Amino acid sequence: MAILLTGLTAATMRGGYGLIPDAALLIEGESIAWIGPRIEAPKAQTIDCGGKLLTPGLIDAHTHLVFAGNRAAEFELRLQGASYEEIARAGGGILSTVTSSRAASEDDLVAQSLPRLDAMIAQGTTTIEIKSGYGLTIEDELKMLRAARRLGRMRPVTITTTHLAAHAIPPEYKENPDAYIEGVAIPSLRAAHAEGLIDAVDAFCETIAFSPAQVDRLFTAARALGLRVKLHAEQLSNLGGAQLAARHAALSADHLEHLSPEGVADMARAGTVATILPGAYYTLRDTTPPPIAALRAAHVPMAVATDCNPGSSPMTSLPLAMNMACTLFRMTPEEALLGTTAHAARALGLADRGTLVPGQRADLCLWNAQHPAELSYRIGAEALHRSIIGGRLDA
Amino acid sequence: MAILLTGLTAATMRGGYGLIPDAALLIEGESIAWIGPRIEAPKAQTIDCGGKLLTPGLIDAHTHLVFAGNRAAEFELRLQGASYEEIARAGGGILSTVTSSRAASEDDLVAQSLPRLDAMIAQGTTTIEIKSGYGLTIEDELKMLRAARRLGRMRPVTITTTHLAAHAIPPEYKENPDAYIEGVAIPSLRAAHAEGLIDAVDAFCETIAFSPAQVDRLFTAARALGLRVKLHAEQLSNLGGAQLAARHAALSADHLEHLSPEGVADMARAGTVATILPGAYYTLRDTTPPPIAALRAAHVPMAVATDCNPGSSPMTSLPLAMNMACTLFRMTPEEALLGTTAHAARALGLADRGTLVPGQRADLCLWNAQHPAELSYRIGAEALHRSIIGGRLDA
Ligand SMILES: [Zn+2]
Ligand SMILES: [Zn+2]
Repeated sequence: MAILLTGLTAATMRGGYGLIPDAALLIEGESIAWIGPRIEAPKAQTIDCGGKLLTPGLIDAHTHLVFAGNRAAEFELRLQGASYEEIARAGGGILSTVTSSRAASEDDLVAQSLPRLDAMIAQGTTTIEIKSGYGLTIEDELKMLRAARRLGRMRPVTITTTHLAAHAIPPEYKENPDAYIEGVAIPSLRAAHAEGLIDAVDAFCETIAFSPAQVDRLFTAARALGLRVKLHAEQLSNLGGAQLAARHAALSADHLEHLSPEGVADMARAGTVATILPGAYYTLRDTTPPPIAALRAAHVPMAVATDCNPGSSPMTSLPLAMNMACTLFRMTPEEALLGTTAHAARALGLADRGTLVPGQRADLCLWNAQHPAELSYRIGAEALHRSIIGGRLDA
Repeated sequence: MAILLTGLTAATMRGGYGLIPDAALLIEGESIAWIGPRIEAPKAQTIDCGGKLLTPGLIDAHTHLVFAGNRAAEFELRLQGASYEEIARAGGGILSTVTSSRAASEDDLVAQSLPRLDAMIAQGTTTIEIKSGYGLTIEDELKMLRAARRLGRMRPVTITTTHLAAHAIPPEYKENPDAYIEGVAIPSLRAAHAEGLIDAVDAFCETIAFSPAQVDRLFTAARALGLRVKLHAEQLSNLGGAQLAARHAALSADHLEHLSPEGVADMARAGTVATILPGAYYTLRDTTPPPIAALRAAHVPMAVATDCNPGSSPMTSLPLAMNMACTLFRMTPEEALLGTTAHAARALGLADRGTLVPGQRADLCLWNAQHPAELSYRIGAEALHRSIIGGRLDA
């Protein structure tokens, strides 16, 4: 049965806002069947939305949503003036999340992650990428990915999963990260792929994590399985991760605070999306923003994501990430919304969503707003009227 | 009828977190009748809250919640690279909000402000200060204050109103701010007081607004009416506003990025609360934080507020303001929560709320959290389970 939505300003996000004032959109099954000015709309059963803003459902292209525990105590210790050594002795840092996530069962992981997923959905997110990376053993990485897949069956949103065993070097491999790549990262990748648990492969390329040579080996193994790759690159320093990502035709390179002009050029050539993560920049009080103007000039598509994680970005709101991208990085509100719709879809390799175009999935957000700039302008807008996922108006 | 809440960790906020694990709290009518360890609780009809965190209802001690229109277009223009002149020509800046608020009816103001109020309530706010200051004529200031009072009758929260006619110099008084103080600010103060519309009086002391001498005349008139004062002070420069506020025994001095050591000492002596507004600092990309360490050392109580306004802080979430106070200003999570409970009550001169103590109003928040540090740790926590306002469990 087809349903026609009217009483809308539509931001189609084709090339930019792609605004249609007084728009109508026809939903048939799970898809958009027609969109255009209301006066040209086909006849169908009609729902008048009473003057809402319509956008594609928001897409969060970079999250670490699945984890156990939280790091509030570490946050508090640091603000009380504790040194990094004191925090490490108190069990802080990423390894504290590894410890709690290893100790958690798959059920625990699902139960603890579900409220975060629901908070994201309440802010307009309809597609969410979730990475592994707090297990760092073959079994614990698989457990995280299974938890992410289960979350996708529990809610109507789409969840895409990313294998990120190369997230941190666990203590047992501290002296031998090469052995970790060969003994855990690549075997867990193959096992997860065999079980149908992964949609893409990611790594953290940084002096405190894995070297370009180690990432290159992992990516080569991933591509041999037919998997697309993406990379945490140039967040804290410039190791040439973006170029490495581009060489592997990566879907995206993410963070990019220290991206070089050569990295920008290589990403542009490879069609690699720049995924911008202002939440981590904000929390870490970084002062080097990613080179937005250079990315813009080179026509590198930019996605904007929450980076939801317990350490550097305990954030579940994409509209807040959009506001931070504008406020802290001087992206425009139009770029920020492209970054959570059309460009985020591209960062996930999803061609069926991110714009309001006939044939695309009917993943839609209705906002209490008149113009899409309002979504970035408010600081963490609570502006969602409702979302419609896969055409389901009854949900 | 008395109701006993159990299954709680209580943060009483007496002197600090004042944590009571496995706590119980007895509500009688609108008040807290008893609080303590569950095993010592009096017998009464019991509601088991199933392991929530209980805090006082949050108090937002500084907002400009009532206004018409928004400034999303100006936000977008600026990020597109428009100059301040171009934005001013396009009708931007505070005067654009004055123009739209003057044009709005009282009904319009209420209708446009109510969604913001509801967003605040959804994030745990139970008491909200609302300022006038976008009317800048006698009648338009009264209209704003009447709208604020009406909002307070439409929702169970407490709204306190603040007269802020001395917010900006309207164009018609551009060359003669003294005449504005004498001809509009003081007469509107007297008229609003006669109508019972104001609980306190505020002004913006800054080179781009009113001088200390002008504020002094206004405050003298306010105190002659028996009204308490507060001040937007040292936000952009140091004019000695904090000392002026202290001389008038002000409830609070607010912003304070450029507060001097003398200002800190005078505030400490006068018992004036420092109201910290990180949303404006964040939006304006300010780089001079208020002197938190000096305020802490001098035992000046610090409140934390949203500063909700259409220009420099379009924010409605107190938990997000708490996160920003910690992240940007290095306040501790305990200070941030005191800043939205006990110290915020003091900033508003309200002795009947802000802590969980017998005799206080039963304004309560139940959070999906185990420890109060989590409220500041998450970036804009969506952690509220429910609030209870004035003991009303049915609401
Ligand atoms: Zn990440
Ligand atoms: Zn203000």
